[in-house]
Amino acid sequence: MRHFDELLEQLRRKLLEMSALVESSILDSIKSLTERNSSEAEAVFKRESEINQLEIHIDDIATSLLALEQPVANDLRFITAAAKINSNLERIGDLAVNIAERSESLIRHPQFPVRADIPRLADLATSMVQQSLDAFVKKDTDVARGVLLSDDAVDDLRDSIYNELIGYMKKNPQAVQPCVDLMFAARSLERIADHATNIAEGVIFMIDGVDVRHHAQAGR
Amino acid sequence: MRHFDELLEQLRRKLLEMSALVESSILDSIKSLTERNSSEAEAVFKRESEINQLEIHIDDIATSLLALEQPVANDLRFITAAAKINSNLERIGDLAVNIAERSESLIRHPQFPVRADIPRLADLATSMVQQSLDAFVKKDTDVARGVLLSDDAVDDLRDSIYNELIGYMKKNPQAVQPCVDLMFAARSLERIADHATNIAEGVIFMIDGVDVRHHAQAGR
Repeated sequence: MRHFDELLEQLRRKLLEMSALVESSILDSIKSLTERNSSEAEAVFKRESEINQLEIHIDDIATSLLALEQPVANDLRFITAAAKINSNLERIGDLAVNIAERSESLIRHPQFPVRADIPRLADLATSMVQQSLDAFVKKDTDVARGVLLSDDAVDDLRDSIYNELIGYMKKNPQAVQPCVDLMFAARSLERIADHATNIAEGVIFMIDGVDVRHHAQAGR
Repeated sequence: MRHFDELLEQLRRKLLEMSALVESSILDSIKSLTERNSSEAEAVFKRESEINQLEIHIDDIATSLLALEQPVANDLRFITAAAKINSNLERIGDLAVNIAERSESLIRHPQFPVRADIPRLADLATSMVQQSLDAFVKKDTDVARGVLLSDDAVDDLRDSIYNELIGYMKKNPQAVQPCVDLMFAARSLERIADHATNIAEGVIFMIDGVDVRHHAQAGR
């Protein structure tokens, strides 16, 4: 096996490792939010620096591959897609930290119920991330395109959560803090879904060489 | 001039064009926020698709450069840094859109004053973006490192804005909507500052080949 191929395999392996870590952080952060579980939040905080270090390591491998020799078109697309997926995964890890921080604040308001739509948004965002990574592993553009279709549902759900929480705060000023926590948690979940969309776009580019970014916004 | 050098120059030029567009969007979005000016918000919305198209174009140039031949270490670092700066700039453009959207909502609550710390946060975030781009143009790591130092001030300012707005909402439930708008605008300004930090880190990597990311968080 050439050194180049070994590094390429290492890039693939490390990215899967990164995916697994980030997926654990999403699931833990959501559990901490919906079940008011402080130890799950702690697990997210502990995983943060591992994810950050792995991001840098994966970037180093990608840069070495580009420096080593002139990659053929397929490999080049894989390397640049991997670099983008890597940075999106790191950002998802950060957002899981944000959610865990909001959970810690919410735990101090046990009388305030978590709104019903938050777990739905969490499920949707989680499954988008899982699908986008699945699309990457299986090189399946159909699965990747499926992720892009969920984007509108996420925005609708976020808007309805915002509206419900704003209405609740107006009538219950003592609940402002937990409502604000939930709004920011919903915002983080929406951003996680956005990063899943970015990953899916990266997978489509990697396989088909077609750039599908920003098509929805073009008609603004 | 070789085709490679021409493309490299084009990459540099297009990135400066992107910087100028995004800087205009930040300034317009802040003006729309602090002066309740709807036409400035409109200008931000109109600029969005131009920024998105330019992001894709810049990415294409970077990919072509990597495919064309094996770049030497210096050029390779410039190309990968340019790609990262590009994606951070596009994200800053998105955040300016978020701020402009919040401004439009705020314009419907003219009786509610914009909190004093918001313009300060806006100034800080804007100057961080300008400095990070200046560091890129002048290849000046001192300027880039200066940007990294502003990060704590941004977080402190954001926290004090959040606390003030939460206190205000508790006492004035009728002002929940404009307060929420301002909280999200502050969040967007903080994220703009984070992207300026990312750009500064990219500049340092480009010049020194040293990866300075995540050092602050390592001791979490």
